[in-house]
Amino acid sequence: MKTNPGRFFEDYQVGEVITHAVPRTISGGERALYHALYPARHAVYSSDEFAKSVGLVASPVDDLLAFHVVFGKTVPDISLNAVANLGYAEGRWLRPVFAGDTLKAQSTVIGVKENSSGATGVVWVRTVGVNQRDEPVLDFVRWVMVKKRRREVEVLTVVPELATSVPADWLVVPSGLDFSSYDFALAGERHRWGDYAVGEVIDHVDGVTVEEAEHMLATRLWQNTSKVHFDVSQREDGRRLIYGGHVISMARALSFNGLANAQIIVALNGGTHASPCFAGDTVRAWSQVLDRAETGAPGVGALRLRLVATKGAAGALRDAGGKYLPDVLLDLDYWVLVPI
Amino acid sequence: MKTNPGRFFEDYQVGEVITHAVPRTISGGERALYHALYPARHAVYSSDEFAKSVGLVASPVDDLLAFHVVFGKTVPDISLNAVANLGYAEGRWLRPVFAGDTLKAQSTVIGVKENSSGATGVVWVRTVGVNQRDEPVLDFVRWVMVKKRRREVEVLTVVPELATSVPADWLVVPSGLDFSSYDFALAGERHRWGDYAVGEVIDHVDGVTVEEAEHMLATRLWQNTSKVHFDVSQREDGRRLIYGGHVISMARALSFNGLANAQIIVALNGGTHASPCFAGDTVRAWSQVLDRAETGAPGVGALRLRLVATKGAAGALRDAGGKYLPDVLLDLDYWVLVPI
Amino acid sequence: MKTNPGRFFEDYQVGEVITHAVPRTISGGERALYHALYPARHAVYSSDEFAKSVGLVASPVDDLLAFHVVFGKTVPDISLNAVANLGYAEGRWLRPVFAGDTLKAQSTVIGVKENSSGATGVVWVRTVGVNQRDEPVLDFVRWVMVKKRRREVEVLTVVPELATSVPADWLVVPSGLDFSSYDFALAGERHRWGDYAVGEVIDHVDGVTVEEAEHMLATRLWQNTSKVHFDVSQREDGRRLIYGGHVISMARALSFNGLANAQIIVALNGGTHASPCFAGDTVRAWSQVLDRAETGAPGVGALRLRLVATKGAAGALRDAGGKYLPDVLLDLDYWVLVPI
Repeated sequence: MKTNPGRFFEDYQVGEVITHAVPRTISGGERALYHALYPARHAVYSSDEFAKSVGLVASPVDDLLAFHVVFGKTVPDISLNAVANLGYAEGRWLRPVFAGDTLKAQSTVIGVKENSSGATGVVWVRTVGVNQRDEPVLDFVRWVMVKKRRREVEVLTVVPELATSVPADWLVVPSGLDFSSYDFALAGERHRWGDYAVGEVIDHVDGVTVEEAEHMLATRLWQNTSKVHFDVSQREDGRRLIYGGHVISMARALSFNGLANAQIIVALNGGTHASPCFAGDTVRAWSQVLDRAETGAPGVGALRLRLVATKGAAGALRDAGGKYLPDVLLDLDYWVLVPI
Repeated sequence: MKTNPGRFFEDYQVGEVITHAVPRTISGGERALYHALYPARHAVYSSDEFAKSVGLVASPVDDLLAFHVVFGKTVPDISLNAVANLGYAEGRWLRPVFAGDTLKAQSTVIGVKENSSGATGVVWVRTVGVNQRDEPVLDFVRWVMVKKRRREVEVLTVVPELATSVPADWLVVPSGLDFSSYDFALAGERHRWGDYAVGEVIDHVDGVTVEEAEHMLATRLWQNTSKVHFDVSQREDGRRLIYGGHVISMARALSFNGLANAQIIVALNGGTHASPCFAGDTVRAWSQVLDRAETGAPGVGALRLRLVATKGAAGALRDAGGKYLPDVLLDLDYWVLVPI
Repeated sequence: MKTNPGRFFEDYQVGEVITHAVPRTISGGERALYHALYPARHAVYSSDEFAKSVGLVASPVDDLLAFHVVFGKTVPDISLNAVANLGYAEGRWLRPVFAGDTLKAQSTVIGVKENSSGATGVVWVRTVGVNQRDEPVLDFVRWVMVKKRRREVEVLTVVPELATSVPADWLVVPSGLDFSSYDFALAGERHRWGDYAVGEVIDHVDGVTVEEAEHMLATRLWQNTSKVHFDVSQREDGRRLIYGGHVISMARALSFNGLANAQIIVALNGGTHASPCFAGDTVRAWSQVLDRAETGAPGVGALRLRLVATKGAAGALRDAGGKYLPDVLLDLDYWVLVPI
């Protein structure tokens, strides 16, 4: 057979390094499409002039665009037969990506654990995205539930130790970044790092009702080939599941309203796609400040934020039993750089 | 509260200058998206070679793209609590915008007038868009009806004097423009400036049935955050209102068929969004020649045109009582440069 | 009348050369949109680094993007009054197209034949697309059924002789192409030219359910103005017909899964749009290897492939009577370059 059947649980060996196919050159086109697909307005990613005024050579592409491109490359090797995308950890952005850069990706299998059913198992991989100079731009761990090909195969369990969140001293500030002459008026809000209190909840107010054409355009642009996003015959309910990363980007873009100065995503501490998202849903977002940290860079502080995408009310997350409320689509935990 | 509640009527002071947030670098991506969103084919904006043949350094982005980007920046400060976008006047394009340029915008409040209801008022602003060299690329006046926060506040009325149309001698021809070797075959039609008679009506024949995904992609690309375009919960009828500028661009692009040589928009004399446009509507367009003028530039004439977007028949505009017919979406009055 | 009524059958003179309007400069924007519209992943067209590793100066735009741009230019002159797009022959890609190139197109009428009904006729044209250096990038023959304006006009029949397929020794390999250090891991599959047997059928497995917004974005981007793709009032059934080229690109992109190394399209031998495609259809694809040939270039072989787009099962093409099965959308015959 010439086509890719995808890997099954027993095909993953701890320590194996997988080179993912199809490197991708990013241009102003991907950049513009990102702004057409999401209401993205963070000034560093919108204007070359603004980016230069904070010490970068040009305006990079959105950090999540880089994430999606790298993630997309892993799909044919990691999640084609995945039942669920279970979690993320230890994600770090290591270097901005600019128009003209070419990204490729590699993953190392760092853990496998059979489920008690015997029909599936969990696979952990650490993925690194590199640019055309082989400089790492992004790395993260994710784990997925994958079908077994044959029940009877036994696999030795290896569960990796992962940080519950990225420690502040692991954060990589882009080279040259300097927020000391940051223009708050051009950025859109006056709130500084010091204005955000741990525990504070921000309702981002705006909502977007999502369409089939949009999420498919996005998911294809990241060269993500997961069938459930494109083909109505893949699910019993005849619905196309929206790529979880589309919800992440939508929520992050909506968070501009209240977090306009939360400019540069530097770490992904964890994340859960709590419920599936479908066309017709109206996605809203709220954030909670989880932690604050200083960085060595001039004028640059870091905030650790929970970003929740929901079809319901701001601030509501779990029911009395600790389960996510049915309206919650996404619970994401990340670090972002903010002017002090 | 960290999020932007928008301004209310009594928050505007005549003479106040508002710096709008989030400068935007334009690339070939925005350019391509404009051509995907609208059936735009004017040769100056399609081909670097054609643009050079008429004296420009490269093909600029469509004039309306520049308008939308500048307009979009004003929304959070001017029209977030607007009830209606009432009109435009004294709009002039001052300099072409090219891929690589960064646009930002500033508005000056030039008028305020309370409505008799006491619940709303009209605010006039003059907005200027500038590029990364602080050269103005576009300026225009618009006025909007804005909610008052509190009925009892009194505001001194200032109504600006505005030209009913931009006089021909105010028009700014792009530096270097020369239509004397204009290639009519490559441009798509043979009609010259002299072939258009004042009063003449042109039915542009073609129609486009519009989709939700398209107008949201466009409106986001201009970083226009007005909630009614994106969120079905914003209106009682559960429909997303299409950004009026989407209708302007659609009608202008449809007008290629009959006005292929009406290349460069130089002034916006006025405009009315006569009826709301929704997904599923089939937009058509017709034009009427209102005036003709010469310019000092070689081979360059100017036409003043009425551009009407409609869901109905060409040529029909108002009923016996002078009200717009229900099928009319847009009535726009502009000046455009045409080879003599 | 200022608008283009399109040509009718009797307006075509054999030997006439038609210069098509509106040259088009391609940028990274068109490139990114192509990847958003279709699940395109062939490495030569995705990565500058990969393209350089096989001897090109940069990653070209997809061959079918160049085809659509050239085809689109011909529509106002050739197929505005066409009843059907009947076939293609002798298509050859002559030179890669890169971001920054400007394309224009010219057609020569090479045949006309009245239909027995007297109401329509067939017109054959040979179209050539050239870049800004007037170098040909693509040429092909197509023939369309066009309405007659008046039944009584008689036209002398000229039927051109056309190759049933492009002979292997007509194929033009891009200058400098060298597949001898081809990276199969980065390209996504290990199958070489020698692994494909004549007669072999490949089911490309994946499917895409298509949306109105997507095909209209695509068709506009190619500046194709055919009314039936955009305006629900054009057909009695109120449906918008999807541009046949959209189906070609979708099927070609889906064929990555099984033909990831079928990198560079060099000839179009023929093609039939067997059934109309509408929004809501789920498009699948399968291929059959028709022929193999060597080329002079290092490491470069050629495969002649049938590419079938279908709403049904792989491998099924015609019924007992030789008619296309109702699920078949497209039957395309092309040559493509593959590493040996």
